[in-house]
Amino acid sequence: ADQEAMSQARAHQDRLTKPRGALGALEEVAVRLAGAAGACPPPLPAPAALAIFAGDHGVHAQGVTPWPQEVTTQMVANFLAGGAVANAFAAQAGTSVTVVDVGVAADLPEAPGLVSRKVAHGTADLSQGPAMTVDQAVAALETGIAVAGDLIGAGAACLITGDMGIANTTASAALICAFTGHDPALATGRGTGVDDATLDRKIAVIRRALQINDIQINGIADGGQGRTSDADGGHGRLPVGAGGRASDAAVSEAVRKLAAVGGLEHAALAGFILGAAASRVPVILDGVIAGSAALVAVALSPDALAHCVAGHLSAEPGHALALDHLGLRALVDLDLRLGEGTGALLAYPLVSSAVRVMHEVATFDSAGVTDKDVQNHDD
Amino acid sequence: ADQEAMSQARAHQDRLTKPRGALGALEEVAVRLAGAAGACPPPLPAPAALAIFAGDHGVHAQGVTPWPQEVTTQMVANFLAGGAVANAFAAQAGTSVTVVDVGVAADLPEAPGLVSRKVAHGTADLSQGPAMTVDQAVAALETGIAVAGDLIGAGAACLITGDMGIANTTASAALICAFTGHDPALATGRGTGVDDATLDRKIAVIRRALQINDIQINGIADGGQGRTSDADGGHGRLPVGAGGRASDAAVSEAVRKLAAVGGLEHAALAGFILGAAASRVPVILDGVIAGSAALVAVALSPDALAHCVAGHLSAEPGHALALDHLGLRALVDLDLRLGEGTGALLAYPLVSSAVRVMHEVATFDSAGVTDKDVQNHDD
Repeated sequence: ADQEAMSQARAHQDRLTKPRGALGALEEVAVRLAGAAGACPPPLPAPAALAIFAGDHGVHAQGVTPWPQEVTTQMVANFLAGGAVANAFAAQAGTSVTVVDVGVAADLPEAPGLVSRKVAHGTADLSQGPAMTVDQAVAALETGIAVAGDLIGAGAACLITGDMGIANTTASAALICAFTGHDPALATGRGTGVDDATLDRKIAVIRRALQINDIQINGIADGGQGRTSDADGGHGRLPVGAGGRASDAAVSEAVRKLAAVGGLEHAALAGFILGAAASRVPVILDGVIAGSAALVAVALSPDALAHCVAGHLSAEPGHALALDHLGLRALVDLDLRLGEGTGALLAYPLVSSAVRVMHEVATFDSAGVTDKDVQNHDD
Repeated sequence: ADQEAMSQARAHQDRLTKPRGALGALEEVAVRLAGAAGACPPPLPAPAALAIFAGDHGVHAQGVTPWPQEVTTQMVANFLAGGAVANAFAAQAGTSVTVVDVGVAADLPEAPGLVSRKVAHGTADLSQGPAMTVDQAVAALETGIAVAGDLIGAGAACLITGDMGIANTTASAALICAFTGHDPALATGRGTGVDDATLDRKIAVIRRALQINDIQINGIADGGQGRTSDADGGHGRLPVGAGGRASDAAVSEAVRKLAAVGGLEHAALAGFILGAAASRVPVILDGVIAGSAALVAVALSPDALAHCVAGHLSAEPGHALALDHLGLRALVDLDLRLGEGTGALLAYPLVSSAVRVMHEVATFDSAGVTDKDVQNHDD
């Protein structure tokens, strides 16, 4: 992040016709986006583009959700037909919607609005071994980077994360444990609504996944960057984001953990975040799926964090753990637990409003408004 | 509220292609608006209109704020020039902005966008006696009702409350004490940013105001509706909102308390809420000023509550007390403490999104998506 632009943004906020700090968390958003863009004021984040990455999960076989796996395919069709909540919220927010098949189990017919980048027909069962090969994880990361680049190339000034994948809160919780060191009992939630018995099974499945994939959670609270590995985790192929400064070992280990317990849409979302950061475009994160993907992205390229805005706080308990680890504050907190990008879409007008203030609001001097603190600043 | 429309809205939410309850608080908003409108789905709340009611406060003389009183006038000019945060947020949200002089101390020149309905050149000092006469309070209430009617007549399908008045958090805290029974020490905050000594003075001023105006706070936690008065508090003149069912005595006492410790903009905002309710149009409440005005409106006409949506939670502690008393949950919670309607403007796209879902999202049946709970409903 550009510290000079952030300082300028803070100073500018203090000259605007409002009490200092009166816009609360939105002032921090504007400062953050100035730092990410390296400009004060930061550019208006319009137009924005939502990408919904869809994938299936081998762990579905463990009974971690009451929803049948084919709902992933059915919901992709619903997105393409414009009938999902994400479509309604995108219409309200004025953003485009792109659906990316990065790993749906079924073969999907070509359709307008569908980007076919299937890396695999779903992941393997993470409780039995790695969910993906390292090559698959890297391919999905590259897909996300490419989709971000395509959308930005087409004019998007803000990216919004979306996801669809029955059972993907299980993979998210496993990633959050793997990258924050928290226990599965803390990080695992009810997803789209599971009963007590299923929740217990889900926690046990995640615990087994971490064990069988040799992921230590005790004492790993630094994003896993302190851990070393001899294997080349695909680092040689991976185009990491702007200012990536993670060590080769940290990158290898992050990719290994992603492949072990992540999903294809999680990998693509991590790449999507890296792609946004590489172009200095802000990316609004949706809920727990995006939060877990952001942990991966930041482990690969710590500077990517500066480009992330946490859109909303999911009802999933792991999401708060992920955001705490990243040091992000969510803008919307309405007990949503839907995914698809819905929480991030709701946050988008808040982000736009925060930036608009920097462009359009008069200063005390220009508006002739008396500043109670005028004695405290000398500009 | 129309219970049948609310039941229909709940049932419709459960047929949409999303897990039941997955939209959290937004589902409640959609149900609430269905009940308010008496229709399922409720109409889309567009276009929306912001009205900023401006007034000055005699209690300013007690040193309850570091801002000079003329900032009210200066900010009115800033609103009219389009330079305030409310203007930037209104532009982002796509709402109109109307500024109403209901009680600014200075005489304001005519200007496009300014509605001149000055009831008085500011209020009297509430710590020395009643801030307004009952006639003034009723005139300001009627102004708010009229402005609501004018905006709705011009096509507004949603009203948004705004306010400007240096020292108006003092009057708000006093109203909140008067209508909820809470002690001033709990209800009083730092407004636009006062130091400890000023906060202590502010609390003492409010305590004196309640005493000198014969407003009991101990044990009054029912909105004051149990209290009786022989005086006609203007009830004969007051066109209360749709379905008003408060007793004459309750109305008289509410108007007496409003006149005693309220502000002209608070009275106008209470009328604005009643006017929205009378036309069955939703009104999005901004922060602590609107919250205290809503207490007045609901005391005058309990059914007005069904038409209110709490836009945001202010940093002012009294606001949470007011919302608790009203049973409302705020949609945006970002530590804003600005007023002007800014928090409500941020909430407006969230409200629109909640209603849009009811119009645009496919059902499990229509989209061919498998419903895990299909065995639980019989439609």
